[in-house]
Amino acid sequence: MTKIEGVCKEVLEKTEWVAIATAGKDGPHVVATWGDYVRALGIGDDQLLVPMGYMSKTEQNVKLDSRVEVLAGTRQVAGAHGPGKGCSIVGKAHVQAAGATFDAVKAKFPWARAALVVKIEKVEPQL
Amino acid sequence: MTKIEGVCKEVLEKTEWVAIATAGKDGPHVVATWGDYVRALGIGDDQLLVPMGYMSKTEQNVKLDSRVEVLAGTRQVAGAHGPGKGCSIVGKAHVQAAGATFDAVKAKFPWARAALVVKIEKVEPQL
Repeated sequence: MTKIEGVCKEVLEKTEWVAIATAGKDGPHVVATWGDYVRALGIGDDQLLVPMGYMSKTEQNVKLDSRVEVLAGTRQVAGAHGPGKGCSIVGKAHVQAAGATFDAVKAKFPWARAALVVKIEKVEPQL
Repeated sequence: MTKIEGVCKEVLEKTEWVAIATAGKDGPHVVATWGDYVRALGIGDDQLLVPMGYMSKTEQNVKLDSRVEVLAGTRQVAGAHGPGKGCSIVGKAHVQAAGATFDAVKAKFPWARAALVVKIEKVEPQL
């Protein structure tokens, strides 16, 4: 899958939080944002937007290596082995601190210093 | 902090799921396990245990670079900016598919093919 659809859409609609993994000279790094935040900004077919408060290491990492993996999960969606399903989203991310996309993020989250724009390349349900 | 204590312990006790980030030749990778699973195996002062079903890329990654970052989060613990707190755990991980630790994991999770043993180096509350 290359789009957030079907069961993955359902997971994104219900996940409490979302993990965003990057890699850099200090090794792997993972930050989180609330599911509410990405939902408020609209779960696009091909991109996710994340308001950035701190996330300074994530910013440093994606400047050197834009590859990211994003993970959502919830017990509220049924999986193959019982209650609980996940969704992995692989893509490339960049930081925007000006422009129309940033303005849209800032309008909803006045504390945001930038927007993390995740361009989706692969979407894979988990469990 | 180098131990899971205080508010971080509270987050681990309440988080629905836990994200585990590694890095490898394909870039950053993040998998998840349920909070129930790590709690069932006991949240140690200096280590976390994760039952491995698949997690093959995580296994490949830690064989080459044992650094991991683990993240938990929940709206059920108050943060500085409202409901919601996270906990980041940085450490080194290895896979055990035999021995006493694996036996203890297998006893609780018969489907586990191995145990991911995370040795904790740094614990940091988020939000």
